[in-house]
Amino acid sequence: MGIGVKEKKDIIVMKFGGTSISDTDKIKKAAGKAIKAKLSGCKVVIVVSAMGDATDNLINIASSINKNPSHREMDMLMSTGEQVSMALLSMAIQEKGYDCISLTGKQAGLLTDDIYSNAKILSVDKERLLKELGSNKIIVVAGFQGATPAGEITTLGRGGSDTTAVALASALGAKYCEIYTDVDGVFTADPRIESNSSKIEMLSYDEMLELASSGAKVLHLRAVEFAKRHNVVLHVRSSFNDIGGTWIMDVEDSDKKMEKPLISGVTHDTNQVKISIFGLYDKPGIAAKLLGGMAGKNINVDLIVQNVSENNLATISFTIKNEDLNSARKVLENIKDKLGIERIEVDTEVAKVSIIGEGMQTHPGIAAKMFDLLGQQDINIEMISTSTIRISCVIRKEKIRKAVRVLHKGFILDK
Amino acid sequence: MGIGVKEKKDIIVMKFGGTSISDTDKIKKAAGKAIKAKLSGCKVVIVVSAMGDATDNLINIASSINKNPSHREMDMLMSTGEQVSMALLSMAIQEKGYDCISLTGKQAGLLTDDIYSNAKILSVDKERLLKELGSNKIIVVAGFQGATPAGEITTLGRGGSDTTAVALASALGAKYCEIYTDVDGVFTADPRIESNSSKIEMLSYDEMLELASSGAKVLHLRAVEFAKRHNVVLHVRSSFNDIGGTWIMDVEDSDKKMEKPLISGVTHDTNQVKISIFGLYDKPGIAAKLLGGMAGKNINVDLIVQNVSENNLATISFTIKNEDLNSARKVLENIKDKLGIERIEVDTEVAKVSIIGEGMQTHPGIAAKMFDLLGQQDINIEMISTSTIRISCVIRKEKIRKAVRVLHKGFILDK
Repeated sequence: MGIGVKEKKDIIVMKFGGTSISDTDKIKKAAGKAIKAKLSGCKVVIVVSAMGDATDNLINIASSINKNPSHREMDMLMSTGEQVSMALLSMAIQEKGYDCISLTGKQAGLLTDDIYSNAKILSVDKERLLKELGSNKIIVVAGFQGATPAGEITTLGRGGSDTTAVALASALGAKYCEIYTDVDGVFTADPRIESNSSKIEMLSYDEMLELASSGAKVLHLRAVEFAKRHNVVLHVRSSFNDIGGTWIMDVEDSDKKMEKPLISGVTHDTNQVKISIFGLYDKPGIAAKLLGGMAGKNINVDLIVQNVSENNLATISFTIKNEDLNSARKVLENIKDKLGIERIEVDTEVAKVSIIGEGMQTHPGIAAKMFDLLGQQDINIEMISTSTIRISCVIRKEKIRKAVRVLHKGFILDK
Repeated sequence: MGIGVKEKKDIIVMKFGGTSISDTDKIKKAAGKAIKAKLSGCKVVIVVSAMGDATDNLINIASSINKNPSHREMDMLMSTGEQVSMALLSMAIQEKGYDCISLTGKQAGLLTDDIYSNAKILSVDKERLLKELGSNKIIVVAGFQGATPAGEITTLGRGGSDTTAVALASALGAKYCEIYTDVDGVFTADPRIESNSSKIEMLSYDEMLELASSGAKVLHLRAVEFAKRHNVVLHVRSSFNDIGGTWIMDVEDSDKKMEKPLISGVTHDTNQVKISIFGLYDKPGIAAKLLGGMAGKNINVDLIVQNVSENNLATISFTIKNEDLNSARKVLENIKDKLGIERIEVDTEVAKVSIIGEGMQTHPGIAAKMFDLLGQQDINIEMISTSTIRISCVIRKEKIRKAVRVLHKGFILDK
C-alpha cells in the first residue's frame, strides 16, 4: 500500500477476564498486549471483567446487608467492579504513552432490556465507539453491563463479559474477538485429569457450543451462541504468554474442515444430580408436565430417560445441575399428587462424560466405540444422550477420571 | 390535618460521610436514621460518600499503575466508591421493608462542567428525583459525582459530597440538609485540645465559613458557600447518636441573634508554612506579581505581611498550606530574578489560631483582648489577619495548644 493511501484498519476486540487483570502487574501486562495489537496496525477495543475476586467480595458484602437484595440495586453494585477495571487498564495504557479512553456499558452504547441481573442486549449504538476509534484511541469497555433505554444500569448475568465482547465485535465488524484467559485455549480434555491432552487449534461454533454445554468452562455458552449467530471469529488464548490459542469459526466452507479430527474433545461435568421419579401415570404429556414445571423455575434439565413398566406406570430419570436441586424438589413437591408420583430418588454421585466432534456425523460406529471403551474399564453407562456432534454418558462420579482418560486415549491420541 | 386532605410533605436531605458508613453495621444504622425520618412524615433524599477508606484505596491502586493518571479516568475510578455505598445503603433500607432506589449523580440530574476531578455543578435536573419521591421512595444519591451534558462522569473534588447534598437540598427546596458525621456538631474549640469545649447550637453562614476556612474540618467551605448562596439550612450532627447537632442558617432577622455569644469558636490550623522573601524591589505591583504567580498554580496564600526597609527593598512574608510548598518553591524559582529576590526563608514551625464570632462587629476591643491573652502566656504573635468576624494570629507551632486553651477560656468559658 502506497504512502498517502488511506488504509481501512482492522478492528479487533480483546476481552480480559478477571484472572487476567487480578492485580496491578497483570493489568500492566494486559495493557502491553493491547498496545502490541495497536502497534500491529489494528484499531483496538478492549472488554474487561471485574478484577479477580472483586465480584465475589461485592456479593458477600451485599448479602451481609440484605439476604435478598433487589436485582436493580445488585446491578448498581456489581457494575462498579468492571468500572474499576476499565479505569485502571486505561490508566495503564496511558502510562505507556498511548491514547486511551474507558467507557461504561452505557457510554459504549450497549442497550439492554430491563431484566436486571440477567439483561439481554437489544442493540449496540456504535456512534461513540466509532468516534473514539476515529480519533485513534484504544477503547476499554466495561464488560457484563449495559443500560436500558431509560438509562438504568443493568448487568448481563453469567458469562456477561464474553457476551459484551462478542456483541461489540459483531456491531463493529471486528476481524476477530480475542478472549484472554488463564489457560492456553480449549483443550482436548481437562489437563488436570489427562496430562496428554493438548490444545485444540480450531473448532466450529457447534463444537464449541457442545463443549461449553457439556463441561468445558473456558467460554460461556451464551457468548458462543452470539458469536455463531453473528459469525464472529473467536480466539481463546492465554493472557500470560504469546502462544496462539484456539480459533472458533465457521469451518463449513473451509479447507480446514478436511484436516479436522474425528473427535475434537472429551469433556466431563461432575456438577450433576440424577433425579429418578417412580410411579408416574403413563399418559401422554406427563413428561411434558414434569419438565414444564422445571422450565418454569429456570431449571435446565439435561439428560432424560423414560421407561414404561408393566402396570402402566412410568419411571422418568433426568439430570440437573447441583445448584438447582432445592428448586427442583419444590417443583416436584407441588406436582407430586397431580402426576401420581410414588417415589423420588436423588443421586448426587453421578457425572457426565462426553465426546464432541463434527466428524462423527459422517463416521458411523463412534457411539459403539465409546460404549466399548467405557465397558472395557468396567464403567457402567446409566444414561445416554446424543446430538449430531456429541455423545454423552452419565456414569458413577468416582469413575469420571478413568472415563475421561480412556476416551481421550481411544479417540484423540490414537486417531 | 383532617383525613383526606392531601398534605405537602417536607423534603429533607441527609448526607452520610465515609466514617458514618464505613462498615455494614454502620450502613444499617444509617438506614435506620433514614427510615426514622421517613416515618416522621418527611420525604427523604440521602447523599452518601464512599465507605471509609475506599477512596484512599482506589487512589493507591491507581498511583501504583500511573503516577499521573488522566483526570477523566480518575473520575471514572473514584465515582465507583459512592456507587458501592449507595447500592448497599439502598439494600439496607429495602431489607427493613421500605421502598428505596439508588441513583448515580447522572441519574439524579447533577449536571456539571467538564473540569474532571474538580467539576462545578451547572444545574440539577429534578425530574427523576421528583418522580421517585412522588412514588413515595426513599432516594439514595451518590455524592461527589455528576455528569457533563455529554454524559461523561465527573467528580466534584474536595468536599464534594457535602456540596452534592446542599445542591440537592437547594434544588428540591428541602426544609433542611443534615450532614451526618463522626462528631456531635461544630465545637467551640477542638475537643482533643480543649476538653471544656462544647457543641455550638447555632451559627450563621459567615461564621461557619470563617470556622471552616480557619481550621474546623467538620464541613467543607465550598458546601457552606453553596448553602449560604441558596439559603439552605444545615444541621451538622452525629450519625452515632440522636443528639441534636449544630444548626447553620441565616440568623440576620432572627430573635436567635440576640442570644448569640460574642465569640462562637476558637480554631487552629497547624497545616501552615510561612515563607519570607527578602530584598524585593519596592515597586508598586511587586506583591501582586508574586501573589499572582501563586494564584496561577492554585496556591492559596493566607496571611500576608509586607515591610519596607530603608534601602528601598521590601520583605514579604506569607503563609500557605504545607502541601503547596513544592509548587510555591517552583513559582518563586521562576520569578526570582525578575523581582530581585535576595533570599527566601521557609518556616514550617508555625501555626494559626483564630477566634470567630459575629458579635465582634459591634464590640470593639476584641483584638486587644486576644493579643493580651496570648501575651500573658508568652506567645509571640508573628502575623495578624482579620475579617469583620474573625481575627487570626500566626504563632509558633509548639504553642498552639496553649493558645487555643487560653483563648477558649478567655472568650468562651468566661463570657
